[in-house]
Amino acid sequence: MTHTPSDADRLDRLECRLAELEAERAIARLLASYGPIVDSGSAERAASLWEPHGVYDVDNLLMDGPAEIDAMVRGDLHQGIITGGSAHLLGPHQITVDGDTAVAIGHSLLVRHEDGRFVVARATAHHWSLCQGPEGWRVVRRVARVLDGRAEARALLALAADPAGSSPATSPARA
Amino acid sequence: MTHTPSDADRLDRLECRLAELEAERAIARLLASYGPIVDSGSAERAASLWEPHGVYDVDNLLMDGPAEIDAMVRGDLHQGIITGGSAHLLGPHQITVDGDTAVAIGHSLLVRHEDGRFVVARATAHHWSLCQGPEGWRVVRRVARVLDGRAEARALLALAADPAGSSPATSPARA
Amino acid sequence: MTHTPSDADRLDRLECRLAELEAERAIARLLASYGPIVDSGSAERAASLWEPHGVYDVDNLLMDGPAEIDAMVRGDLHQGIITGGSAHLLGPHQITVDGDTAVAIGHSLLVRHEDGRFVVARATAHHWSLCQGPEGWRVVRRVARVLDGRAEARALLALAADPAGSSPATSPARA
Repeated sequence: MTHTPSDADRLDRLECRLAELEAERAIARLLASYGPIVDSGSAERAASLWEPHGVYDVDNLLMDGPAEIDAMVRGDLHQGIITGGSAHLLGPHQITVDGDTAVAIGHSLLVRHEDGRFVVARATAHHWSLCQGPEGWRVVRRVARVLDGRAEARALLALAADPAGSSPATSPARA
Repeated sequence: MTHTPSDADRLDRLECRLAELEAERAIARLLASYGPIVDSGSAERAASLWEPHGVYDVDNLLMDGPAEIDAMVRGDLHQGIITGGSAHLLGPHQITVDGDTAVAIGHSLLVRHEDGRFVVARATAHHWSLCQGPEGWRVVRRVARVLDGRAEARALLALAADPAGSSPATSPARA
Repeated sequence: MTHTPSDADRLDRLECRLAELEAERAIARLLASYGPIVDSGSAERAASLWEPHGVYDVDNLLMDGPAEIDAMVRGDLHQGIITGGSAHLLGPHQITVDGDTAVAIGHSLLVRHEDGRFVVARATAHHWSLCQGPEGWRVVRRVARVLDGRAEARALLALAADPAGSSPATSPARA
């Protein structure tokens, strides 16, 4: 290039780069809020993280839409976990934004208080598909598989290593 | 709007948006430094994370001011934990900045080496209130409650679900 | 200062500040990808995180160059861990960028599925030295020490408390 970019060009470019960082920040904040929200039993707020047609697919349980997520948080199983004492702690997630869609891949631990001590009740692989709409970023589909040796869980995490697989344009294989 | 923003308007707006990201980054860095600082017994540095009138309120222990935090890190209990082997590992925190004040809400795990194996000795809910001054961001009040089923710990995390509760203008209920 | 900065000065400054955030973001993304990559056995991708002359120094094992990291991931020990079920979960890292070099300091947990339950098999202190080249940010040297009480592990984490120690210009002591 033989010409210097104009101030307007530089402003355009800065605004785009900043918007990318802000999108990642918004998604990281949504992920960071998930644990505190479910460990406090904030069912309505948990449900609101998903799109109206969003899905939460955990091993053999498929929650279809925010109302089913709300019901899960209010359900006896979840209430038993949190009133006994629990931390749904996420690890860092690899976030890939492409315009108004995004993918995040990472781990979580569920630590529970049981019989006076703390145990890791579950380690889980996660693949989140998100999109940005009028309400901000929301979850379109979250797939979670327990890391108990099943190949399916490793396959979810392998998408982080694959530029195509971590792209919002693709989805994890439906097992 | 029928007029195009001027370059000066765009610069003003970019500077504000960038400053917001930089504030969150500074706070995330402070949080990320906490574990390595206390697990290495860096007492003076730990104390310096708090404001001169800052408070660290953990269950039944109230540390009032940096000198008491310094003393906690140098104390027999903490020294026993770290010389045996420990990781104070934080989960991701939901950070909300409002000008020169901020709130961060999240979990931590204390993993200890005991009898040749690692155990989760504690899972904790955290609510940090911070402010920015001449020394940068510092902790004004950190409230930590063990996640052993007590309602108080869930109440801290519930503030992450509440736009008003996660605002720096409010504080967790003093239990 | 008695003069107002020109638009060109403001643009220069914005571009520098944004580049700093983008560098930290790139490094945080590399760190976030590590766990999913090794837990899925993505050996080639794991190796590609290191510079051609990069080193991974774990307790008594020194992996010298990407080929040795690739071999570790493909090796029986690692394959046994991941086919049984594992989460290499990182904590937040304190990242310090200085131009084209950077340091990151933090913890990780290795959670394994064993005999039908999950256990913390290892808690580790990490000091990453990175540099930016034509391929983006890569690991130059990663030092990991198990947090079993050994002073060496605490010494790594203590570098997070020391402005000089967390600078890319210095390295952890070779123990």
